[in-house]
Amino acid sequence: MSATGHGRNGPAVTMRDVAKAAGVSVATVSHVVNDKPGARIGEDARRRVQEAVAQLGYRPNALAKTLSQGGSRFIGLVADAIATTPFAGQIIHGAQDEAWKHGYVLLVANTDGNTEAENDAIAMMLEHQVHGILYSTWYHREIVVPEILQQTETVLVDCYSTDTTFAAVVPDERQGGRTATEQLLATGHRRIAFINTTSPSPARTGRLAGYRDALESAGIDFDESLVISAEPQQEGGYASAEYVVASGASGVFCHNDRVAMGLYDGLRERGLRIPADIAVIGFDNQEVIAAHLRPPLTTVALPHYELGAAGVRVLLGLEPAPHDGPLLIACPPVMRASIHEVL
Amino acid sequence: MSATGHGRNGPAVTMRDVAKAAGVSVATVSHVVNDKPGARIGEDARRRVQEAVAQLGYRPNALAKTLSQGGSRFIGLVADAIATTPFAGQIIHGAQDEAWKHGYVLLVANTDGNTEAENDAIAMMLEHQVHGILYSTWYHREIVVPEILQQTETVLVDCYSTDTTFAAVVPDERQGGRTATEQLLATGHRRIAFINTTSPSPARTGRLAGYRDALESAGIDFDESLVISAEPQQEGGYASAEYVVASGASGVFCHNDRVAMGLYDGLRERGLRIPADIAVIGFDNQEVIAAHLRPPLTTVALPHYELGAAGVRVLLGLEPAPHDGPLLIACPPVMRASIHEVL
Repeated sequence: MSATGHGRNGPAVTMRDVAKAAGVSVATVSHVVNDKPGARIGEDARRRVQEAVAQLGYRPNALAKTLSQGGSRFIGLVADAIATTPFAGQIIHGAQDEAWKHGYVLLVANTDGNTEAENDAIAMMLEHQVHGILYSTWYHREIVVPEILQQTETVLVDCYSTDTTFAAVVPDERQGGRTATEQLLATGHRRIAFINTTSPSPARTGRLAGYRDALESAGIDFDESLVISAEPQQEGGYASAEYVVASGASGVFCHNDRVAMGLYDGLRERGLRIPADIAVIGFDNQEVIAAHLRPPLTTVALPHYELGAAGVRVLLGLEPAPHDGPLLIACPPVMRASIHEVL
Repeated sequence: MSATGHGRNGPAVTMRDVAKAAGVSVATVSHVVNDKPGARIGEDARRRVQEAVAQLGYRPNALAKTLSQGGSRFIGLVADAIATTPFAGQIIHGAQDEAWKHGYVLLVANTDGNTEAENDAIAMMLEHQVHGILYSTWYHREIVVPEILQQTETVLVDCYSTDTTFAAVVPDERQGGRTATEQLLATGHRRIAFINTTSPSPARTGRLAGYRDALESAGIDFDESLVISAEPQQEGGYASAEYVVASGASGVFCHNDRVAMGLYDGLRERGLRIPADIAVIGFDNQEVIAAHLRPPLTTVALPHYELGAAGVRVLLGLEPAPHDGPLLIACPPVMRASIHEVL
């Protein structure tokens, strides 16, 4: 009795159904059915897609026909709060630029995690025959994909599901953590503290793994006492100052820029100068804070714009997503003035 | 030769054309042609609208017909950068919630001030037969309305034009400035400095006027030496600290929260405590900063959410806009911990 409405009279077969049946990604199905030149698809995968298309009665040209007749050129973007959360709005910006580039209009719905509003928004997008939907969250996390999204092509942006038939695009937290730590190592710091968040999340585990990777590559033993847990806000950074000082670290990698902002206050109260006495690097590149602290904060950027743009490319079959997990987008360093050259 | 394409074969007559001819607002036209119960429209205005409708051949029911046939239920929102600018994204949030409430979907286009992209976005919205367009900016300012917007109902949000046939919804800067100053007056401060922005804008003139209003109501002479000009960012606030201290003020009204954040640093370096030694109030309520400073910043909120929601209501004719200028949305105070009770 579960999964009602998905029987004989259920919705039409989608690319996702084909992908599931063929055991490949939606991007691969798209490449095969659209016969994209230049797409390197293995013969085996191609054959399985073609078999699944035949078996399920998928009609790949229905949408193309709609489009050539001047029909829907919409891509939906469902966001839990990114339209209203500082700086994550760049996901919308990136998705929109990329959509426009290919002649699509982005339909944005901000649902604030309200399930009913979310279902309404998605239903209305389906009614307007969107080409597909980007389902995004304002911070990187695991989600359960709403049932209704089974009815269209969906790409997860800044989130992922254990149901790996959904393509996903997420920031490379581990590389980001490694990059942050490497900025401190490159300027001679050897004793580096890491203020990590208390919230379980891919950012927490990924950035820690990257921190350890960087230390290991530099031949430095991991010292658990240098990892401090804090609320991922200014208050958490402020409260961590005493532990940072006690640890004897000469450099600190902060889980995010807000933590760094609070740490600045805490270190200042103890008479310590940044970067002369202690070097600090943040994460996120939340411009309104990072660029305007005293001194301006060196940090690692969450690639929100790129997440949105890559999501559209994956949805349109212009960029393949890996078959075994999310597409990882690099988190680049942003150099400012909070890391000192240690001799 | 100017205004090509607006001759005999030009676009259909819009509500705006009727408003222009009748010398009333679009909202008034909407009320008259939709025969809204409860709308108080003067007999003279009603007659002029009806005459203009007859003269121009406006067909008020064409859209309603499209809608009842399940046609377009879109409202367009064109933004120069609000989807990507911290906290102004709340305009989108408010517009979206209000649009959904009335069965409309918001089509958002973020143009970053690129004229070509803007024209493309608006053209595509017109192609999709939007009910109308909200044209918004990320900070309150005067604009020249793009020519193409003559073709549809348009409401300006967070901006306004000298062409007053366009309805506009903007924050009440003057009331906001008065409210900020009153918070300081109410706790006993009499010598109040105002760090104003150097950028010419309605915020600059409006907040100053409100500051003067409040002083006058309290029987305090305006003292020009208490008005300090600064870049509207952290750096400007930091640089103002020495003038604030020299002025002998016991309370400071900062043009925005970013200025207050910089001022905090500058006052701290001089050994002054907030609010024990000096009280500070900001403007904007940029949450990620204001709520997390030490101490948390008392401020006045820019009503972004309300601007978006009111814009939709005006567009749909559910809320009348004044005939002689923008609809002003109140800027409410947000109490935190940076104002001290002075005995």
